[in-house]
Amino acid sequence: MALNKQPYRGTRDFFPKDKRVRDYLFAVMTKTAESFGYESYDGPLLEEVELYKAKSGEELINEQIYSFTDRGERFVAIRPEMTPTLARMVAQIHRESSKPLRWFSIPNLMRYEKPQRGRVREHWQLNCDVFGCPGRLGEVEILQVAVELFQSYGANSTHFEILLNDRAIADAVFKTMMKATSEQTHRLYKIVDKAKKITHEALQKMFGEVGLDSVAENIFYSYLQLKTFDEVKIFLEKNEQNEIAELFSIFVEFTKKAGLSEYLKYDPTIVRGLDYYTGIVFEIFDKHPDNRRALCGGGAYANLLQIFNEEPLPGVGFGLGDVTLRDFLEVHKLLPNLDIPVNDVFVTFQEDDCLDAALKLAQLLRKNNLKIVTSLEPLKFKKVFPTAEKKGVKFVTLMGSDELAKNQIQLKNLASKEQHTLNLSDVEEILKIIKA
Amino acid sequence: MALNKQPYRGTRDFFPKDKRVRDYLFAVMTKTAESFGYESYDGPLLEEVELYKAKSGEELINEQIYSFTDRGERFVAIRPEMTPTLARMVAQIHRESSKPLRWFSIPNLMRYEKPQRGRVREHWQLNCDVFGCPGRLGEVEILQVAVELFQSYGANSTHFEILLNDRAIADAVFKTMMKATSEQTHRLYKIVDKAKKITHEALQKMFGEVGLDSVAENIFYSYLQLKTFDEVKIFLEKNEQNEIAELFSIFVEFTKKAGLSEYLKYDPTIVRGLDYYTGIVFEIFDKHPDNRRALCGGGAYANLLQIFNEEPLPGVGFGLGDVTLRDFLEVHKLLPNLDIPVNDVFVTFQEDDCLDAALKLAQLLRKNNLKIVTSLEPLKFKKVFPTAEKKGVKFVTLMGSDELAKNQIQLKNLASKEQHTLNLSDVEEILKIIKA
Repeated sequence: MALNKQPYRGTRDFFPKDKRVRDYLFAVMTKTAESFGYESYDGPLLEEVELYKAKSGEELINEQIYSFTDRGERFVAIRPEMTPTLARMVAQIHRESSKPLRWFSIPNLMRYEKPQRGRVREHWQLNCDVFGCPGRLGEVEILQVAVELFQSYGANSTHFEILLNDRAIADAVFKTMMKATSEQTHRLYKIVDKAKKITHEALQKMFGEVGLDSVAENIFYSYLQLKTFDEVKIFLEKNEQNEIAELFSIFVEFTKKAGLSEYLKYDPTIVRGLDYYTGIVFEIFDKHPDNRRALCGGGAYANLLQIFNEEPLPGVGFGLGDVTLRDFLEVHKLLPNLDIPVNDVFVTFQEDDCLDAALKLAQLLRKNNLKIVTSLEPLKFKKVFPTAEKKGVKFVTLMGSDELAKNQIQLKNLASKEQHTLNLSDVEEILKIIKA
Repeated sequence: MALNKQPYRGTRDFFPKDKRVRDYLFAVMTKTAESFGYESYDGPLLEEVELYKAKSGEELINEQIYSFTDRGERFVAIRPEMTPTLARMVAQIHRESSKPLRWFSIPNLMRYEKPQRGRVREHWQLNCDVFGCPGRLGEVEILQVAVELFQSYGANSTHFEILLNDRAIADAVFKTMMKATSEQTHRLYKIVDKAKKITHEALQKMFGEVGLDSVAENIFYSYLQLKTFDEVKIFLEKNEQNEIAELFSIFVEFTKKAGLSEYLKYDPTIVRGLDYYTGIVFEIFDKHPDNRRALCGGGAYANLLQIFNEEPLPGVGFGLGDVTLRDFLEVHKLLPNLDIPVNDVFVTFQEDDCLDAALKLAQLLRKNNLKIVTSLEPLKFKKVFPTAEKKGVKFVTLMGSDELAKNQIQLKNLASKEQHTLNLSDVEEILKIIKA
């Protein structure tokens, strides 16, 4: 019986070439997050299902989660997202921690999905969150982190934009101006979420079913037509929502000072379904016509710790998946070529009796922080260079009986083609050439 | 209803302090593996249970694995070890790959265990493997990697030793010299595996049940008393196992040349239960009396790809878990203090109107590859330094109305206590001091 060699449906094998791409994506994430003083954390692969139910409700849990009962009768799930784990961890330590708390993580997550472009069952996701920031500065900082991250991959405002809204605005429009009940507001959020994907007729039909009057209807359509921060301000002021307008203006002013304006665009349809957001909500969109979709989403929340009976701790964060990010970088040709590894020296020998000396040289070079690939058998001259190329080395050392007799090696720079005959004992000179 | 804040039984929350330790452990693993030209790979979190059954048999599967049936009726498991995934991946590509194939990975794995010291349900494990090495050099190289790794953590031969055997020797002793059948050999492996943990009487009783004669019995006890490579050689030669003795001598010679002798010790009881090993088998043992146990195990195998109907490809590898490694480093006081993070500058301001300038300075410093923590509200002088200490910064910048009026900052070096008054526009000078 021969087993299947392919990975489980919806998951990926990361052969070295693909792993290098993943490592590159993660290295840039880590460097960017750390440049803002964010500290890395991680949690367990499994959590009790109760935790996800408390945060997301039954519906999401039943459809998409990998859940099962363990041998001790605990009902557990492979983490489908990081936020519940984050909330659980922050709930443990927030009282004795100095604020703001800046954290990031790049966990692997699993969802039971139908695999398709951009959607797999196992993916990795950068999660950046900041807790306990004064005023609106946490919101601004998290947008700075996201923009800086994309810039670090070489992207700019021709490649992506941030569509942004504020749940406080949507709430003011629906609850105060349109006089919707909580239940009606919930339905309006669902309609708004779909507004860009459906026809105006479908939108009207859905709105009709909510049971609001024509005054509310007019406000609703006016709201959906808002396109700039200035229009929002005027709209709110005209409808006597001065406090909301003022709070949003403060946020907008900060984003200007932080140099974010060229990336930000007001979008009334961005509400991010999940209930826990209370401040800004945003999605980073790819501007490429072939890949027009959300790369990243996030927002501000006031009560993430509520499910643990903890006092409110305002936070804001975003999540960015590795699959959509890779698609984005590929479609814009921003991904560096990582097809071959990077090594320093390929240590080879051409005759059996040189093995010892070659192994010793390799070990010595490693001790000097070099990446060394060794040949473990005599290698014919013509086979040395094709292998060196595959291994991405910068230098090759060669040694035959002649060199061994004189205690020498040939050191060849593959780029410049320069070749040096060096004494094996002259380590300083060898290192000087390699590290030059 | 308040939810439980603790992680699922047997798993760990990695708060930043613990995550830094994990990151340190992994960084040394990565650096060491890469210094030998090993390339990083990864596989999926889930595999079909068939894969584990094919490699390890029903028994292990049923007892310790996290398995369940997915919504598409596939019987899957969270990976309890990496080798089956590695075999599956190598089976896909080995025919068109140049040899040797040097790979490493640091996956998270799950086993259903009773949590106790050194044993958790979720752990991480470095896996290093090399495929297609000539002669015995792969075995030597993998030992070199393991030794170099421990040395990179600051450990030496006073801290650890490598107990080593060769399955070819055990096979020769059991099958050829003692004339045991395959089934008896299998039972002898199980007895040998336990030999050090049981009394001599218990050992005799177990041996008696195998059904071998007294000649075999004498050979068996002589074998169990072998303590050095020289004794093994003499024992094999005396029993006309010259070929096995010779092959083992070649290996021992290589380990001497590779500088491994001070770490290696022959141990006839090391056989590593799993059936697939065919060459050397080894365990790295902690020498500390409080932590006397195996840290790491590995060995050479000839037929890992057999379950995929692939031709034999010799390989050798080892696995090292994060929990036992951390215990080892802690008991020997080799773990660096990572209680606080490392950052470059804490950018603060003392009056509201300096916020803009401070944010701009922070952004500028980040663009110059510095790790910057910002204060997002005016910070009183006496609160600056305790926070700076918690954040592990080397410099603090201060700015009040006086400085703002002159477009200046105060830059303070926390170690030397030196303080400079600098123009905000003189970026070069600011960077010069910070990067000095």
